[in-house]
Amino acid sequence: MAAAAAAAGVAWVTWGDPSSVSAIEPSHVAGAHTGKVYLVGAGPGAADLLTLRAARLLATADVVVSDALIGPEILAGVREDCLVITMGKRGGDARATKQTDINTALVEQAQQGRTVVRLKGGDPLLFGRVAEEMRALDAAGVAYEIVPGITSPFAAAAEVGIPLTHKTLSTTLVLTTGHDPSLLDFTALARMDTVAIVMATRTLEAIVDGLVEGGKAPSTPVCIVRNTTLPNGAIYTGTLDRVVADTERLKLSPAVLIVGEVAALAQGGGCTPDRLSAEL
Amino acid sequence: MAAAAAAAGVAWVTWGDPSSVSAIEPSHVAGAHTGKVYLVGAGPGAADLLTLRAARLLATADVVVSDALIGPEILAGVREDCLVITMGKRGGDARATKQTDINTALVEQAQQGRTVVRLKGGDPLLFGRVAEEMRALDAAGVAYEIVPGITSPFAAAAEVGIPLTHKTLSTTLVLTTGHDPSLLDFTALARMDTVAIVMATRTLEAIVDGLVEGGKAPSTPVCIVRNTTLPNGAIYTGTLDRVVADTERLKLSPAVLIVGEVAALAQGGGCTPDRLSAEL
Repeated sequence: MAAAAAAAGVAWVTWGDPSSVSAIEPSHVAGAHTGKVYLVGAGPGAADLLTLRAARLLATADVVVSDALIGPEILAGVREDCLVITMGKRGGDARATKQTDINTALVEQAQQGRTVVRLKGGDPLLFGRVAEEMRALDAAGVAYEIVPGITSPFAAAAEVGIPLTHKTLSTTLVLTTGHDPSLLDFTALARMDTVAIVMATRTLEAIVDGLVEGGKAPSTPVCIVRNTTLPNGAIYTGTLDRVVADTERLKLSPAVLIVGEVAALAQGGGCTPDRLSAEL
Repeated sequence: MAAAAAAAGVAWVTWGDPSSVSAIEPSHVAGAHTGKVYLVGAGPGAADLLTLRAARLLATADVVVSDALIGPEILAGVREDCLVITMGKRGGDARATKQTDINTALVEQAQQGRTVVRLKGGDPLLFGRVAEEMRALDAAGVAYEIVPGITSPFAAAAEVGIPLTHKTLSTTLVLTTGHDPSLLDFTALARMDTVAIVMATRTLEAIVDGLVEGGKAPSTPVCIVRNTTLPNGAIYTGTLDRVVADTERLKLSPAVLIVGEVAALAQGGGCTPDRLSAEL
């Protein structure tokens, strides 16, 4: 590929004969005795929001290396003789697995000729540490493929009926994390139409202050969706200037915060009245 | 729900008894003789990137109202007696269906007691016109639910191995459309770590000029993924200052443009060398 690109002067490459391409092929990059790793998005929580491809890979894998937060319903589809290893991170948990241990496990399992599914919550390429896993697999010459998954901001929006883009209200959607608000450029974020933030609830006050100081109007609608797609889901709707005081005594986490005019449209969708009751 | 929220002074509502909640329930909001509409994301193209929920709904629907760009493999799973109506938009196509006609069809089919799947490419809430469909269904008292789908920027990133966020290279991801670059705030966009733009290739020069004038370094890596997850997929990798000249004679559309340091990591993933060949 590199040679072809250099010859043409352009790094534009296409897949080969379309009729011979299947979505997932066995890879022969790393020799006959090496298995393959699939870095797979498990989606937002509900087991039926897995993709068909992810479900098929789970049903055929020799080994599944799962994040700690993946629910048992999602793992119910594995083979009876599948080795399931839970090696995940929980925010700030001292028992969390080290990333290097996960990398080593993936490489070692594949080098024993196994088909390995590395299962991550949401989408594997968003808010994960999958880049480090890819680098370790590359370094070891282990072939891998990535299978996208539904990420929680999209699931939350679907559940409560928020259009993430909108003809007149929203041209841009930003996805980011509230894990460390000091990393965020709030002036630029405030100029985006819609801002969706995961891990936003522990640092909610800093995020709200940042957005308002950055220029977002205090009256901007916000929506918080907790436990999206799972039982005990919940939704808060309000405005930037009210959200901190309003939610002071509520258990919010794990939740997605959506900020923008479109958040005012929440509850037009899946969250129909017959599925809701007051918590307070 | 409104009453409960008002009494508590907080618009925080939770789903009822968790043990009684299923992901999709028949809705009784609009009376016994009215059907229901599911606004469903079809994903980026490959049929096995549908969610299990979407596949199940397609297999049971009385009526499917499909966008014009949805491939036949995805519609292969419908019931033999399912009525499939293709009412989609193609960019700039004079034959495109009017949005009001789509809205009317959804309402009328549901009012005849049918279960209707409105199938949209990617995710229904991103870069679609689903807000108008929701408003029409609300106005007619027709119940609906939204089922998220994999959107093309996530599928493209998975296919070529670009981490959309990254511990050191990318805290923020913006999703937007290049349909009308005059709507974009390029100064703010340029301050985001990673920018993923759909419908970017017809207006590529205006987008590149906007981002560079907005402050993005001309040397910023870019990646274009055409026909993500489909046969005849292709990938270009380069930099902001080269991309327009490099791709002048290439058929790019439909494609996703990813701009940011992470784009330099492309091709570490699913796009393994044995699946690639040079087009030029």
